[in-house]
Amino acid sequence: MIPRSTVPKGDATLVELSRADCLRLLATGAVGRVVFTDRALPAAHPVTYLLDQEEIVFRTASGAKVAAASLRNIVAFQVDQIDVDTHRGWSVLGIGEAYEIADPERLVTLTPRMPQPWSSGAVNGHVIGIPLQRLTGRQLGP
Amino acid sequence: MIPRSTVPKGDATLVELSRADCLRLLATGAVGRVVFTDRALPAAHPVTYLLDQEEIVFRTASGAKVAAASLRNIVAFQVDQIDVDTHRGWSVLGIGEAYEIADPERLVTLTPRMPQPWSSGAVNGHVIGIPLQRLTGRQLGP
Repeated sequence: MIPRSTVPKGDATLVELSRADCLRLLATGAVGRVVFTDRALPAAHPVTYLLDQEEIVFRTASGAKVAAASLRNIVAFQVDQIDVDTHRGWSVLGIGEAYEIADPERLVTLTPRMPQPWSSGAVNGHVIGIPLQRLTGRQLGP
Repeated sequence: MIPRSTVPKGDATLVELSRADCLRLLATGAVGRVVFTDRALPAAHPVTYLLDQEEIVFRTASGAKVAAASLRNIVAFQVDQIDVDTHRGWSVLGIGEAYEIADPERLVTLTPRMPQPWSSGAVNGHVIGIPLQRLTGRQLGP
């Protein structure tokens, strides 16, 4: 067996993605990670999400750490898809001020489109939005 | 088509994982995310990694943002594996003080075991260790 570190590195290159490309990729994803600060420590928790226009929307349980830590705070949202064998993939990082979506009319239109939350406790929890005020991404390909 | 949000939520439960379980799961992963603070904003970047004893080890390019931001700082390292269709999966979050591994003897033993970095620019870059001083995780299963 050839040690993996000596495999020829090929012509893999990192390409910065435009905002439009990032949005297109985010629309294809299903699970992302809310990146926040939890009692002064960095933290990341996976959630199922919906991209609504240029905003990440996800559900989280009432009282959940992620809700308490993210509401009205600047948080990041990270999604990636990486194939370690072919060395192809992408990673997108959004930044925005999280808020609870409470507008009944908007919730009515969002609810049928939202994926089932990863935790069943989140079904009756908060619906949180992260407007993607900043959005960067990188694609790796041969 | 039934809107996904009205699919019965089943008996999905979140179970907190022990440190031993977290380490076992980390050993099965290949790609994780370094979670750090980048100019006061939360950030997460995917890397290929190796679990060496109870330490995350990864390579990053010289001058990379992730290296500058993580060296000697408290960072998190997050790995998950989630199947949105079956609602099974896990997520692990480690916390530790990142440092550059410079000991030549240790590098000699690490190098053959390390996965190829996600960016080819990282091949000759830094080797960074994150001792998992704190390690938490959750498993979701029916």
